[in-house]
Amino acid sequence: MSKVPSKVGVLLFPGFEPLDVFGPVEAFHTISHQSTKIDLVWIGPTLDPVSTAPKEIVMTTVGSTVDTRVVPTHTYDNPPEDLEVLLVPGGVGTRVQVPTSDAAVAFVKKTYPKLKYLITVCTGAGIAARAGVLDGKRATTNKYVWKTTTMTRPEVNWVRTARYVVDGNCWTSGGVSAGIDVTLAWMASVYGQEAARDAANHMEYEWRDDRNWDPFAYMFSDSEGA
Amino acid sequence: MSKVPSKVGVLLFPGFEPLDVFGPVEAFHTISHQSTKIDLVWIGPTLDPVSTAPKEIVMTTVGSTVDTRVVPTHTYDNPPEDLEVLLVPGGVGTRVQVPTSDAAVAFVKKTYPKLKYLITVCTGAGIAARAGVLDGKRATTNKYVWKTTTMTRPEVNWVRTARYVVDGNCWTSGGVSAGIDVTLAWMASVYGQEAARDAANHMEYEWRDDRNWDPFAYMFSDSEGA
Repeated sequence: MSKVPSKVGVLLFPGFEPLDVFGPVEAFHTISHQSTKIDLVWIGPTLDPVSTAPKEIVMTTVGSTVDTRVVPTHTYDNPPEDLEVLLVPGGVGTRVQVPTSDAAVAFVKKTYPKLKYLITVCTGAGIAARAGVLDGKRATTNKYVWKTTTMTRPEVNWVRTARYVVDGNCWTSGGVSAGIDVTLAWMASVYGQEAARDAANHMEYEWRDDRNWDPFAYMFSDSEGA
Repeated sequence: MSKVPSKVGVLLFPGFEPLDVFGPVEAFHTISHQSTKIDLVWIGPTLDPVSTAPKEIVMTTVGSTVDTRVVPTHTYDNPPEDLEVLLVPGGVGTRVQVPTSDAAVAFVKKTYPKLKYLITVCTGAGIAARAGVLDGKRATTNKYVWKTTTMTRPEVNWVRTARYVVDGNCWTSGGVSAGIDVTLAWMASVYGQEAARDAANHMEYEWRDDRNWDPFAYMFSDSEGA
């Protein structure tokens, strides 16, 4: 019987989107308390707290100050040797014009061959795509900024209409909240349907487990994105 | 014309539930980039990172290690003078047997009279209830641990069947994911329906804005809780 994966890393970079990270992390927290051994680690550029607000992009014209800072446990240079699953969130920090995104891309490129599974949320698929690990694979990403993300790597078979896509060991999802759905679906596949459903229910989350149901693909079908 | 609130504080304590915080915070992030000035602050016992894993409670029997650490910007002793909205998350750290929950209760008791709005998620309602600020008001909380939370304060008119409840300036919600729904509903009330719907869509979140729709109230109706 093959051992199920337990070592899960969250990739952090400046300008990550909060729910891209914490939707899936909530699912990992919940299942880890119930039925399934999970060792969760946080991988940042350095051990300094990583902010949702990258210096390079001014997010708002209305003068808001919003900034979430999360503490890494590991660095890109020294991730756990036995990492099995990597979660790659999206956010403005994934954009090609944000210099720190290059280091995140390089980390995924270096790490992917050792992984059992890769899960991306939102424009995190852009990081994985730029790392070349989705070439020739089917994948999806955020529907609002679809064009700007997918044009970075035409070698990927981008699937616009999906809430999430599975190809090989790569699980990619649509924008933000879709990360919860893909993570629960991945858990159902790896840990069993009952464990995943139990986690969803304890999150009081109405999990849509149909990977082809994505109203936002329709809603943003004419979007040029931001 | 009365000024709409912009100064929002997130109450942090050891043993907070990740999505209770970051569902609402994602909504604040999103709306803050679009239409609405938001100044978000993080209020912890000290300025040290606050962990989802309280020392007092062993969450798992399967040997998991999961721990999220978030950096506060302010302390209970020195919150911003002009705080207008306080978000109180739930989590195991709200339980009466967790000693650090007493400080969170005292902070809410001290701060509530100056607030324009209080929003609670999940067992965060237990913190607000113990602070006495929900006495005589209608309120709701997590459906799975319903009994253990509501029994801490029978002076509250607990509403089991609601996804969220509004009474005066107190917006209380069900478990975990319900925090997203209550925050978007609060935003619709305060910033307008269009701004809230726009935020939900950019989160690619299928927002249920019916406060009376809560399948988990039914699902966990016989639950003794944990």
